Amino acid sequence: MSDASGKDGKRALAEEWLRKAHLLSEALPFMQRYAGKTIVVKYGGNAMLDAEACRNFARDVVLLHHSGLRPVVVHGGAPQIESMLERLGIDSGFADGLRISDAQTVEVAEMVLSGKISKQLAACLNRVGGAGVGISGKDANLVRARKIRHSKDLGFVGEPEEINTSVVVALLNEGMIPVVAPIGIDEDGNTYNINADTMAGSLAAALNATRLLLLTDVSGVLDEKGKLIEEVSLAQAGHLLEQDGIIEGGMIPKLKTAMNAVESGVEAAAILDGRVRHALLLELLTAHGAGTLVREVR
Amino acid sequence: MSDASGKDGKRALAEEWLRKAHLLSEALPFMQRYAGKTIVVKYGGNAMLDAEACRNFARDVVLLHHSGLRPVVVHGGAPQIESMLERLGIDSGFADGLRISDAQTVEVAEMVLSGKISKQLAACLNRVGGAGVGISGKDANLVRARKIRHSKDLGFVGEPEEINTSVVVALLNEGMIPVVAPIGIDEDGNTYNINADTMAGSLAAALNATRLLLLTDVSGVLDEKGKLIEEVSLAQAGHLLEQDGIIEGGMIPKLKTAMNAVESGVEAAAILDGRVRHALLLELLTAHGAGTLVREVR
Amino acid sequence: MSDASGKDGKRALAEEWLRKAHLLSEALPFMQRYAGKTIVVKYGGNAMLDAEACRNFARDVVLLHHSGLRPVVVHGGAPQIESMLERLGIDSGFADGLRISDAQTVEVAEMVLSGKISKQLAACLNRVGGAGVGISGKDANLVRARKIRHSKDLGFVGEPEEINTSVVVALLNEGMIPVVAPIGIDEDGNTYNINADTMAGSLAAALNATRLLLLTDVSGVLDEKGKLIEEVSLAQAGHLLEQDGIIEGGMIPKLKTAMNAVESGVEAAAILDGRVRHALLLELLTAHGAGTLVREVR
Amino acid sequence: MSDASGKDGKRALAEEWLRKAHLLSEALPFMQRYAGKTIVVKYGGNAMLDAEACRNFARDVVLLHHSGLRPVVVHGGAPQIESMLERLGIDSGFADGLRISDAQTVEVAEMVLSGKISKQLAACLNRVGGAGVGISGKDANLVRARKIRHSKDLGFVGEPEEINTSVVVALLNEGMIPVVAPIGIDEDGNTYNINADTMAGSLAAALNATRLLLLTDVSGVLDEKGKLIEEVSLAQAGHLLEQDGIIEGGMIPKLKTAMNAVESGVEAAAILDGRVRHALLLELLTAHGAGTLVREVR
Amino acid sequence: MSDASGKDGKRALAEEWLRKAHLLSEALPFMQRYAGKTIVVKYGGNAMLDAEACRNFARDVVLLHHSGLRPVVVHGGAPQIESMLERLGIDSGFADGLRISDAQTVEVAEMVLSGKISKQLAACLNRVGGAGVGISGKDANLVRARKIRHSKDLGFVGEPEEINTSVVVALLNEGMIPVVAPIGIDEDGNTYNINADTMAGSLAAALNATRLLLLTDVSGVLDEKGKLIEEVSLAQAGHLLEQDGIIEGGMIPKLKTAMNAVESGVEAAAILDGRVRHALLLELLTAHGAGTLVREVR
Amino acid sequence: MSDASGKDGKRALAEEWLRKAHLLSEALPFMQRYAGKTIVVKYGGNAMLDAEACRNFARDVVLLHHSGLRPVVVHGGAPQIESMLERLGIDSGFADGLRISDAQTVEVAEMVLSGKISKQLAACLNRVGGAGVGISGKDANLVRARKIRHSKDLGFVGEPEEINTSVVVALLNEGMIPVVAPIGIDEDGNTYNINADTMAGSLAAALNATRLLLLTDVSGVLDEKGKLIEEVSLAQAGHLLEQDGIIEGGMIPKLKTAMNAVESGVEAAAILDGRVRHALLLELLTAHGAGTLVREVR
Repeated sequence: MSDASGKDGKRALAEEWLRKAHLLSEALPFMQRYAGKTIVVKYGGNAMLDAEACRNFARDVVLLHHSGLRPVVVHGGAPQIESMLERLGIDSGFADGLRISDAQTVEVAEMVLSGKISKQLAACLNRVGGAGVGISGKDANLVRARKIRHSKDLGFVGEPEEINTSVVVALLNEGMIPVVAPIGIDEDGNTYNINADTMAGSLAAALNATRLLLLTDVSGVLDEKGKLIEEVSLAQAGHLLEQDGIIEGGMIPKLKTAMNAVESGVEAAAILDGRVRHALLLELLTAHGAGTLVREVR
Repeated sequence: MSDASGKDGKRALAEEWLRKAHLLSEALPFMQRYAGKTIVVKYGGNAMLDAEACRNFARDVVLLHHSGLRPVVVHGGAPQIESMLERLGIDSGFADGLRISDAQTVEVAEMVLSGKISKQLAACLNRVGGAGVGISGKDANLVRARKIRHSKDLGFVGEPEEINTSVVVALLNEGMIPVVAPIGIDEDGNTYNINADTMAGSLAAALNATRLLLLTDVSGVLDEKGKLIEEVSLAQAGHLLEQDGIIEGGMIPKLKTAMNAVESGVEAAAILDGRVRHALLLELLTAHGAGTLVREVR
Repeated sequence: MSDASGKDGKRALAEEWLRKAHLLSEALPFMQRYAGKTIVVKYGGNAMLDAEACRNFARDVVLLHHSGLRPVVVHGGAPQIESMLERLGIDSGFADGLRISDAQTVEVAEMVLSGKISKQLAACLNRVGGAGVGISGKDANLVRARKIRHSKDLGFVGEPEEINTSVVVALLNEGMIPVVAPIGIDEDGNTYNINADTMAGSLAAALNATRLLLLTDVSGVLDEKGKLIEEVSLAQAGHLLEQDGIIEGGMIPKLKTAMNAVESGVEAAAILDGRVRHALLLELLTAHGAGTLVREVR
Repeated sequence: MSDASGKDGKRALAEEWLRKAHLLSEALPFMQRYAGKTIVVKYGGNAMLDAEACRNFARDVVLLHHSGLRPVVVHGGAPQIESMLERLGIDSGFADGLRISDAQTVEVAEMVLSGKISKQLAACLNRVGGAGVGISGKDANLVRARKIRHSKDLGFVGEPEEINTSVVVALLNEGMIPVVAPIGIDEDGNTYNINADTMAGSLAAALNATRLLLLTDVSGVLDEKGKLIEEVSLAQAGHLLEQDGIIEGGMIPKLKTAMNAVESGVEAAAILDGRVRHALLLELLTAHGAGTLVREVR
Repeated sequence: MSDASGKDGKRALAEEWLRKAHLLSEALPFMQRYAGKTIVVKYGGNAMLDAEACRNFARDVVLLHHSGLRPVVVHGGAPQIESMLERLGIDSGFADGLRISDAQTVEVAEMVLSGKISKQLAACLNRVGGAGVGISGKDANLVRARKIRHSKDLGFVGEPEEINTSVVVALLNEGMIPVVAPIGIDEDGNTYNINADTMAGSLAAALNATRLLLLTDVSGVLDEKGKLIEEVSLAQAGHLLEQDGIIEGGMIPKLKTAMNAVESGVEAAAILDGRVRHALLLELLTAHGAGTLVREVR
Repeated sequence: MSDASGKDGKRALAEEWLRKAHLLSEALPFMQRYAGKTIVVKYGGNAMLDAEACRNFARDVVLLHHSGLRPVVVHGGAPQIESMLERLGIDSGFADGLRISDAQTVEVAEMVLSGKISKQLAACLNRVGGAGVGISGKDANLVRARKIRHSKDLGFVGEPEEINTSVVVALLNEGMIPVVAPIGIDEDGNTYNINADTMAGSLAAALNATRLLLLTDVSGVLDEKGKLIEEVSLAQAGHLLEQDGIIEGGMIPKLKTAMNAVESGVEAAAILDGRVRHALLLELLTAHGAGTLVREVR
């Protein structure tokens, strides 16, 4: 290699670094906007299956924490629960396509969610320098649950009835990152499995969070032509739900959860594509979003 | 019932209440001695199987908390782990009579300990008005573990190598009661099952606790005539261990754990009979002990 | 003594201790109910004459303090004042059966109350491990008094006109137990002797206390058949006072003081039988009361 | 009155005010020197007899408090005690010219000191806008006393053995002014009368005060020609005491008390002429002293 | 000098000191009235020219600080700016008798005010033991300014539009004395010179100050006979302004500034004669005022 | 544009954003390393002349602040001072090539530094959302200076003799960014112009800073072949200085300043190329440095 090309190489390298520094610099207005604000992130169980993705997610959460935000993680765990139920030969049946959670099922669900996934996520955060603490709705009376109303008896499938945020706030104030398993308990001591999106939404409302971020494995809400809708008002979202065949399947409850959170005082809720690396940073620290944002008004 | 006997009945009842009030009054010097002190209690997995006993234990812990002490609970869970391993058809074998913990086994152990027992105990404390929070050694880097040294490879059976008490202290300062599952993690992210007595002892030392209380299902340490030894110095305990046939079986590591804790700065460690109702209150708030106390000097 | 009977004796002894621990355990819901609450206790001068009773009272107050309550003691001292007036040959006369307090009399009353009884009670609390501090209405402007309105001139007999609780709150916040002598001062610097029940009631109202406890030397409020009334609403108490011949003598002002306190925001006021040992603990930490409780509604 | 003289009068008046403001201004360096420092002042019982003097003293103390100092007042009360003993016909006798304090005598002394004088001084401070609180050595274990050693048995005449400053510090931190009666208590609960100078000296040492000021009714320490000594080192003071006939009578223990305080860490101790109006202000806030200052070295 | 006259001299000297101490004592009620209150003082640029006067002013401000008040100083600097403009040969012209501030002029004004006078005043305060900090309206967004409305274009002459007191409050809370240069900045980053009286008035209103003190070089507001008006209500002041020929020249805007401040919630505003030594002390710590006081009602 | 290329364009855009988010993510370990650490940055007067560069610098400083660091800026101003001296026709002469600062010169230097540049930089920080406060060594006794020792009399050219960091620490604790003009004051009140590098170094040492960053307009320290030296130990730097002809001109004092700071306890000092955009971010938040780093040992 000639001197000249060596110099060129060096210059190119330096240019690269300058671009990097400049990109950092562009994050400033976003860090300022969210300084001291609480952000509730729902992280799916599927995503946990990929160790690399999980590590990246953890790094992003810890970066948000270091940038002055107060992140709270709520996680799911459907595939891990399914797999454990299978290993145990438990088949509690379905009603209207929804899994029925009998006592055995909810026992397994709790163990997997609170005993495996929460702690794995917390450990993941700790390995990248955070201080994650895995808790569930049973800790310090975080979530009092009730059975969800449904035409069939789904067993111990619940929804939050009352939320006592003291343990979450205490951990945030101590510079720790709460990782919450979607488990609740009723007044008789029964355990309930709660949909993780619902749990995240209720927690965001109770914490008066600035953002609810639902990480999914699709691009976001799509319009009738299959194009991503980047932002909708509450009214527009309601209109979309009323029209046949636009919002379908699992996106319906997700969109409703986002809308409920906004109606309960969360500034905005986003349905993000969790498959995109650094989706959280894109959404919170850059001008580019990573899915569909729901606000009161556009 | 005649008037006279009615009056007598009333008088008797009143007498009963006065005795009760008097007994309360006798707890004062003990409440004063332990005001603001940290007490680490090891609660066995067997004890968890009896719901009534568990509720009583929770009430005692919350009473200690209200009396100005700072209780921390570490729990075991051997029978629950055994039962789940059996349901899953996992048999990882034994070495020298000790169970080998392969990856599958420690995964189950963690789920049972962190996901089921910790949360059950926390919920139990909450039902009687406490604010229990179930954590494990993975939360906020509480316990960095290493494989225990043994002639055979026991797999993921560990011991604490370094303890970072920040999450425990944060919860205590917020008026909450930490419930700790004996799980640790090494620098490579491997999970270890830790003996609950050992975990409690290490935590007591790291917290500079005033008491380590190991609840067992025997009366305490017995002498060669089978009589309970109420108190021993470190030297006496060492002497007992050296003599053949006095201290045997599971009592040997328990006594060593108690001794280690005292050598590491815990004021005293007691091996208590957990089958006795209110053993904690007897030991801490009355003049009567409930087992064997180990101190530096008698 | 045979081995058998020895064992029986030991067993009996152990049983006794277990009962004791169980009784302690029963105090928990009461400790929870009153945690952090202010309790104003009026302790009579007569009771001070019995050193043993006084020590027991002090132990109970310190126990309440250690159980998380914030006790404030207001004391009387009529017999001690009488005795000192006699020794000094002061006889200021009576009007309508009430003692007239001329300048000499109130000077003696103050010395006895602030200089002897307050300090004796504080010392009593200190000997059992509390931190009692004897203050009077003159300290840090605690009580601005005015002459009570009465058909005859009773001299320097006063009632609280304005209460500045700063010194009481400061001492409570520092973990100390205020012991208050019922002395007030007017804007011209005149000293007034205040009825201790009245003083306790006014202080309880100003502190927004949860309980006003008036310790007396009778069983409580009795109905027309001489039976103890365990609880009355404000309305019922008013009705009792209107009926002739039921509430008589010294019980009339006591009941009125209790009612006034409740009307001013104190949650409940009790007229207790101070002759009963541990009357405070019975009333506050057990399911059994020790006199008559006045609440807004039953 | 002509215009001219009117103008002159006005001008003179204005001049007068300007002089006043200038004098205030001269206090600045002194306020700076003592900002945040603790000053223990011994105020004699004689001085209390003159209401006007007492009000002036109170104003000076409150001014010191407002100027950023932390004043603590210890008072005597010999003439008031004498007078009360006389009224009660108590004559406990003398030994070597010192009054013997039998049980009756010390009871009266305590009532007069703690019940009358402390409260009167506190009220005096309050009337000029301070927040005085009258306490004695019995409050919150302030002074544990022991009998003074003397060739004859003087009864309950004591000296401080151990000082627990918590109540004094708590009051100072709350912006209040402690007024301390020189009464102590031993471990058996016996009450002791303590010399007020001794009490002030011990308290100044325990509080690590910057100044101990002993207000007396003489000019200060005089030399052999009767001239006031404005300042002495410890060594010089020791020398003066050794010489015959210079320091005599009551000045001997006063000088020793001042010396002891300085030896125990108080920066300087002064014996001031309390008959001089505003002696405290002169000593602390002007360049002019008001008696004899004792320091470690001149 | 004979002994006698020597004694007389000493006595006279002592008398002098006693008078001094007495005068200090008279400041107490004033120190009490203003304890913890914020006082905004406008100090003119002319006054800065006399080093001795400036030192005296600094001493007075530090004395106020030590007496428990929270003083804030706003200063002018017209003569210093004029002189610097002259040295630089800048003559931006006048409109209606008001100086036009073009870009060059305001640049010089800022340098002189923020770079010379603020720092000189801060240093002055520091030399007498205070902790002065020179800031301007540019620091921490203290003053957002807008161009003043005037029939002619006066260039960069502004008035406060929005005040963010955070830096002033932070410095006061840390025991420091803010010294504020009357410079503001608009949203486009343009610098504005603000009239120092206006700046002081706006700052006093934003800080909810107890006093606004405008130091001038006249006696105060005079009535039609040239006699000083010691106090006026808002209504009276309005009436005075409406009458021809009473209030004239520079006193008109001063009086309006004082009135505006009072209308905005400042308890009272005074126009003081800054030529009088210790005018601040006279006004705040003695019964004698030093100019004209404006209150809502007399 | 065809659909396909449209998609490609979108994909490319998305890719771009993902790269951006990834780069942000890479800053995490650096944010963690410097969390809560104090960083002193010297910013040159030359750099201030370019408004765009200045805005970029301000953004970087505020980004550091939001990332959890505690930045302090010290600035120079030679060209601005020169220009003002010229406008005023002041020519105080030179000695050994160094400008002599007579009274007139230092007066101008102070006005320019404290009154113009500090405030301009503070305003710059504020416009991008920070809270900059311009102070100088005169504020709250920040820098007591003395005349530098030199063979010729350079007039009022000084160096820090004693630093009182209270105002800097107070502002940092309140979330503000101190901007410090290199001006000091001696005990007689004389003002000194201090070299900005020297000032930054002394302040870094007094604050026990983690980094001293000297922004220059060269690449850093070059070796004998003109190649940038990226890191040197103290010993190596000393060796470089001893060799003839390697380190020359203005780089000599800069390197000495860096070395002094490290010897006084600053963890490392860097001489950075301030012409590089985002040099601060490169140095502190990326793996790439931007000049020469001096540490105790490599």
